[in-house]
Amino acid sequence: MKKSSLQIARAAYEPKLPAALKGNVVLKNGADTQSVADQNDIKNLFPNTYGMPMVTFEASAEKVNMPAVNVGVILSGGQAPGGHNVISGLFDGLKKINPNSKLYGFLGGPSGLVDHKYVELTAEIVDEYRNTGGFDIIGSGRTKLEEVEQFDKGLEICKKLNINAIVIIGGDDSNTNACVLAEYYLAKKAGVQVIGCPKTIDGDLKNEMIETSFGFDTATKVYSEVIGNIERDANSAKKYWHFIKLMGRSASHVTLECALQTQPNITIVGEEVEAKNQSLDDIVTYIAQAVANRAAKGLNFGIVLVPEGLIEFIPAIKKLIAELNDMLAANQAEFDTIADDKKIDYVVSKLSAENAAIFKSLPTGVSRQLALERDPHGNVQVSLIETEQLLADMVAKKLAEWKKDGKFVGKFATQHHFFGYEGRCAAPSNFDADYCYSLGYNASMLIGSGKTGYMSSIRNTTKPADQWLAGGIPITAMMNMEKRNGKMKPVIQKALVKLDGGPFKYFASKRDEWAIETAFVYPGPIQYFGPTEVCDQPTKTLKLEKGE
Amino acid sequence: MKKSSLQIARAAYEPKLPAALKGNVVLKNGADTQSVADQNDIKNLFPNTYGMPMVTFEASAEKVNMPAVNVGVILSGGQAPGGHNVISGLFDGLKKINPNSKLYGFLGGPSGLVDHKYVELTAEIVDEYRNTGGFDIIGSGRTKLEEVEQFDKGLEICKKLNINAIVIIGGDDSNTNACVLAEYYLAKKAGVQVIGCPKTIDGDLKNEMIETSFGFDTATKVYSEVIGNIERDANSAKKYWHFIKLMGRSASHVTLECALQTQPNITIVGEEVEAKNQSLDDIVTYIAQAVANRAAKGLNFGIVLVPEGLIEFIPAIKKLIAELNDMLAANQAEFDTIADDKKIDYVVSKLSAENAAIFKSLPTGVSRQLALERDPHGNVQVSLIETEQLLADMVAKKLAEWKKDGKFVGKFATQHHFFGYEGRCAAPSNFDADYCYSLGYNASMLIGSGKTGYMSSIRNTTKPADQWLAGGIPITAMMNMEKRNGKMKPVIQKALVKLDGGPFKYFASKRDEWAIETAFVYPGPIQYFGPTEVCDQPTKTLKLEKGE
Repeated sequence: MKKSSLQIARAAYEPKLPAALKGNVVLKNGADTQSVADQNDIKNLFPNTYGMPMVTFEASAEKVNMPAVNVGVILSGGQAPGGHNVISGLFDGLKKINPNSKLYGFLGGPSGLVDHKYVELTAEIVDEYRNTGGFDIIGSGRTKLEEVEQFDKGLEICKKLNINAIVIIGGDDSNTNACVLAEYYLAKKAGVQVIGCPKTIDGDLKNEMIETSFGFDTATKVYSEVIGNIERDANSAKKYWHFIKLMGRSASHVTLECALQTQPNITIVGEEVEAKNQSLDDIVTYIAQAVANRAAKGLNFGIVLVPEGLIEFIPAIKKLIAELNDMLAANQAEFDTIADDKKIDYVVSKLSAENAAIFKSLPTGVSRQLALERDPHGNVQVSLIETEQLLADMVAKKLAEWKKDGKFVGKFATQHHFFGYEGRCAAPSNFDADYCYSLGYNASMLIGSGKTGYMSSIRNTTKPADQWLAGGIPITAMMNMEKRNGKMKPVIQKALVKLDGGPFKYFASKRDEWAIETAFVYPGPIQYFGPTEVCDQPTKTLKLEKGE
Repeated sequence: MKKSSLQIARAAYEPKLPAALKGNVVLKNGADTQSVADQNDIKNLFPNTYGMPMVTFEASAEKVNMPAVNVGVILSGGQAPGGHNVISGLFDGLKKINPNSKLYGFLGGPSGLVDHKYVELTAEIVDEYRNTGGFDIIGSGRTKLEEVEQFDKGLEICKKLNINAIVIIGGDDSNTNACVLAEYYLAKKAGVQVIGCPKTIDGDLKNEMIETSFGFDTATKVYSEVIGNIERDANSAKKYWHFIKLMGRSASHVTLECALQTQPNITIVGEEVEAKNQSLDDIVTYIAQAVANRAAKGLNFGIVLVPEGLIEFIPAIKKLIAELNDMLAANQAEFDTIADDKKIDYVVSKLSAENAAIFKSLPTGVSRQLALERDPHGNVQVSLIETEQLLADMVAKKLAEWKKDGKFVGKFATQHHFFGYEGRCAAPSNFDADYCYSLGYNASMLIGSGKTGYMSSIRNTTKPADQWLAGGIPITAMMNMEKRNGKMKPVIQKALVKLDGGPFKYFASKRDEWAIETAFVYPGPIQYFGPTEVCDQPTKTLKLEKGE
C-alpha cells in the first residue's frame, strides 16, 4: 500500500483517552435502566438483558490481573470515519487487559461471522490502519444478523476460536441486532458477550448516554469544507444558485450541522417539513421567495442545502409512496403485463383520488421514477430521485411564472451537487480519532468486566478528551417497539432532529438573516497539526445540544 | 464577515518570497524574445511589444528611491485559489516601492475598467483577504477586453485616478487581451503599463517561463482529497464503480494530476483520445475491459476519472459538433419552425452521411441534448452533457452484452460525481499562497521597472520558495496565430497535456498496474500547519515535468 505523505505523518498521532481509562480501571454500577418506551414488550423480548444498570469506569490504584480474552470484531453497514480507530482502541485495550488476548476481525461485515470468514488482527496489521479512514481493514457489509441459524453459525466459529466476546460496530439496526444476539447467547449460556459501538455519519443514533455516533464529526466537516468552497465561489462569481443535497435519509442532522458551520441562504430540515405538514409546493415556494428577495437586492446567487431524505419527509408524498408500494405489491403480476407507456395511467387509475392527484402534480421525471423503477423488494426507489435537481427545476418554473407577474426581477441559474461518498471514508478528525479510539478501548473494558448487551459509551465530549466519561449503557434501555415491514419489532429509537432542541432553535433564530444576507462561513479543510481551536473542536450540534 | 477558526488562524500566515525579492531589487535584461510561432504575424500585430527581452530580478545592495505608483487590478474569468494573495503581494510590493503608492481594484472583472467601477484597496481591506480563497475582494467577470472603445474608456478612468499600470489576473485569453491593451496604450503613448498574471485551475497556461498557473495546485489537491475519500469508500464497500468527472474543458491536466495523486483504476486523458483518434466506443470498450478484468479477480469496484472536455476531444464527435453548429446556424429560421419531436429527424436529414451515422449512434439523451439545447450564441452545449453518467451507462450496456457471451462474470453498479466548483475557491495551499503572493509582489517590481506587456514569472517552483526565480516574460513570446470564431487571431498557445512529457509518461507506465490492482493513494485534506513534506509539496505534474 503506497501511502500519502499525510497518511505517513498522521500514523504517528496518538489518540487521546479519557483520564479514567489511562491506567487501571474499576467498574461502578449505576442505576438500573428501563427502555425508553414499551417497557413490558421489551422486557418480555429481552428477559436476560433488560433492566441492567448503567455502568461507568473510574481510575483505580489497584491493578487487577485479568485473564486473556479472545474477541471478534465486526464492521456493519455504511462506512464512517474512525472505524479503524475503534479497532485499534479495542486492540490496545485487550492487550492492556492481558498481552495474550487476541482480536479477530470478521470479514465483509456480519456475514463474516456467519460464514466463518475472519483474520487475526495482529499488531502489524492494526498499526497499518491507525488514524486512517475507511473500513478496508476487514471490510463491511449489510447482512442483518436476525435469524437463530445465523446466531448458531456464529457460535460455532466463536467456540472454534475460543472467542469470549463480539464487538459489533454499527448503526441503530446493527446495535439492535447486537442486543438480540447478546440476549440469545446469554439465554443459551453460550459464554459469548456482545458489545455494540455507535457508528453512523447520519448522526441519528444518540441519546443522553450516547452523545454522538462516530463519523458524524468528520463527515460533516468534509461536507462543510466543500460547501464553504462552493459558497465562496458563489459569492465571487455571483451568478449561480447552488442546490446541494447531503447524505442522510432518515434524519437531517448532517444537513443541519453543515448549515450551522457554513451559514447558507436556505436549509431545508426534513423533520420540520414533516412537523409542519408541508407539501412539495410549500418548499418550492419558500425557496423561490428567498431567491426573489435576494434578487430584489441584486443578489442573483446563493446556496440551498437539502437532506437526502427530504422527499420522504413530505407527509403527502410519504402517504403516496406507502400506497404505491402496497398497490404495486398487490397488483404485481398485472402491472408487469402493462406496456411501459401505459404504466403511469395504470398507476393513476389504481391510486386513491387524493394520492392520484398528488402523483399527477409531480414533475414527469419523478412520477416516472416512482412508477417504473423499483428495488429488488418491489419498493419504489426514492433514493434515486435527484431532489437537488428536482427542486432547482421546480423553483425555476415558479420564478418564471412570478417573472411574468413582476414578482421576480432577477436571473436564476443553478448548479447542483450531492455529497455523501466524499465524507464517509475520510481520515478521522482529531475528535473522531480520539472518540473512536476511546469507544474501542472502552469496549475492551466492558468485555473485561464481563458485560454483554451493552453499548460502549463515552460522554462529556465537548470537553477536552481527558475529561471525557467512560462507561456502558444497556442497549435495551434505548429501545422501543416500531413497525418494520408490517411487523412490530424492538428497535433502538432513531434520534431525529428535535425542533425544540438547541441546534435547530439556533438555526431557526438565524435563518431569516442568512437567507437575505450573504452570511457564508468558510470552514476550510480538516486540520490535524494546527492550533487546538482549529483542530480539536466538536460539532456545533454537540455544543448546542449541551447549551454551549 | 464571520470567520471560521481556520480562517482566523490562517490569516497570520506570512507567504514566502523568493530571496531575490526580499530586499532591494535590480532588474537584469536577458535575451530578446520571439513568439513561439507565426513570428511575422505577431510582430506586425504587436510592433511595440514584440521582441522584448526576458527579464529577471536579483537582490541588490543599493536602495533606489522610486516614485509612488497608482495601479489598478482586475480579476478576469473563473475563480482560482490564491487570487487574493496575488492582490496582497501586489499591494505589499507597491508599498515597498513607495508607501504613497495606491492600489485600485476594478469591480466584477474587466467590465469594471470599462464601466469605471472600482474601489481603492486599502491595507484594512487587503488584510481581510490574505491567504483566503475566492475572488470576492473585488469580484471577477468574463467580459473580454477586445475593442478599442473599451480600451479608451479604460484610459479615461486611468487618467482620472492617475493610474500608471493595470495588472490583469487571468487565463490565456485574458493575458492575450492584456497584451493587446499594453500594445494599444504603448502605441498611443498613454503612459499606462499592463502586466499579466497567470491564473487558471485548468493548468493550461504554462511554458518554460511560466511553470504553472496559480490555483492548479490547490484545486487538484481538493479534488484529490475527495477522490481519495471515494477510493477508500470503494475499497471498503467493494460494490461500486465510481465515475468521476473533473473540471477542465480544453486540457486534461487536472485529471492527470489527480490520477498521479490518487492512482485510480482508469483515467481517460483527452489529449490521448484525440491523438489516437479514438471513438466513444473505443473509450467505452477500454473501460468495460478493465471492469471485466477486475471482475475476473472478484473485484467489482473501482474508480474512473474523466476530464470535463472528453466529448470534445473525440475527433469524430468534434467533427459532428462543428457541422452541427454550422448547420444549425445556417438553418436557424427553419429549425425554429420544426416541432420538437421532429427536430432530431430534421438534424439527421441535414447532416453529412458520416456525421449522421455518428449522431444516430449516440445515446438518445446525448443526441437530444446536442440537437435541442443551445447556448445564446446558437452553439450546442457540450458542457451540459453528463459525461460521467453517459460513460457509466454505456459501459453498463456493453457489459450486459458481454455477460450474455460469458465475457463478463461480475456485478457492475455505479455512482457518479462531478468536481469543479468544490476546488476553485478553496483557500490556497501553502504553495499557491506563496506562489500567488510572489507573482503579485513580482508584478509590482515589473511595474516599478517600467515594463509593459509582460507576464509576471516565478520559476524554479519545485524548490523551496527562497530559491524561486523572479522575473518577467513578454506576453508576445507565448503567442501564435489560431482560428477563433472563423478568424485568425493572435493568442497565447494553450498548453495541452504532452503525451511525451514526464507526467503522462509516468502515468502511462503505471496505468496497467493501477487498472487491475487496487493501488489507491489517499492524499487527505490540504494541511497548513504540519510537517513540510505534508504542507509544502508542489504538484506531481510540476515535479515530473522537471524530471524529479
